[in-house]
Amino acid sequence: MIPIKQYTYDEITLGQVANFAVTITEDMMSKFRDISGDVNPLHISEDFAKDKGYTGRVVYGMLSASFLSTMAGMYLPGENCVIHAVEVKFPLPVYLGQTLTFTGEVVSKVDAYNTIELKVSATNSNNQKVLRGKIRAGVLK
Amino acid sequence: MIPIKQYTYDEITLGQVANFAVTITEDMMSKFRDISGDVNPLHISEDFAKDKGYTGRVVYGMLSASFLSTMAGMYLPGENCVIHAVEVKFPLPVYLGQTLTFTGEVVSKVDAYNTIELKVSATNSNNQKVLRGKIRAGVLK
Repeated sequence: MIPIKQYTYDEITLGQVANFAVTITEDMMSKFRDISGDVNPLHISEDFAKDKGYTGRVVYGMLSASFLSTMAGMYLPGENCVIHAVEVKFPLPVYLGQTLTFTGEVVSKVDAYNTIELKVSATNSNNQKVLRGKIRAGVLK
Repeated sequence: MIPIKQYTYDEITLGQVANFAVTITEDMMSKFRDISGDVNPLHISEDFAKDKGYTGRVVYGMLSASFLSTMAGMYLPGENCVIHAVEVKFPLPVYLGQTLTFTGEVVSKVDAYNTIELKVSATNSNNQKVLRGKIRAGVLK
């Protein structure tokens, strides 16, 4: 289990960074399919995905985006987090078995609302950016 | 199983709408926790959530956002979908057992790239908007 951070709003600084790595497994794909009911063949069928020009089944974009929950809820700010908004782009496909390194950096703080904004990215092991995004999170007292 | 739509780019029209309802279950929460490793107590502990001013454990925002995968991958455009980008805001908390109705509407098409943009929202059974967002998706040939 990941140790959860417990930063207060005041302890968080501009430029503060967190990162972690995850490997996308078959089990994650199957659980995401169960949750969402999304059985689009791009994620299920090797043949379909190859026919569309991919090298294999493509990982659900929103599965990769799930780790933005982890970034904010476990690392930055951690326990006191409530996510208000997320933006995410998927510049390159992610494939099963790939290890993604997520990096989050505090790019703004809004004192009046106790909210922080993180710039987030994920890179694969070839150092290609597969996800770029932002998280706006409140820091609970 | 949801029947998957198979719209081509040309078949999709501005203003086209899709909607579906989902009930957030304990099983979804537990699977999302397994995928993400996010064990933030806001989603796990009734006591913690109440102490922070919520009426119960809060559903992971990114779990609710998972259904944007379903919207694009199953309904609009369906089979030929590849998601490029997502924006999502969470104006109100979602609680376990709530039934959310997701609505997606085609608000733009970019012929040069075969991409569509959907405006998406989710309302709870009190007709309160709990999620607002956008999906930009490519329609594969």
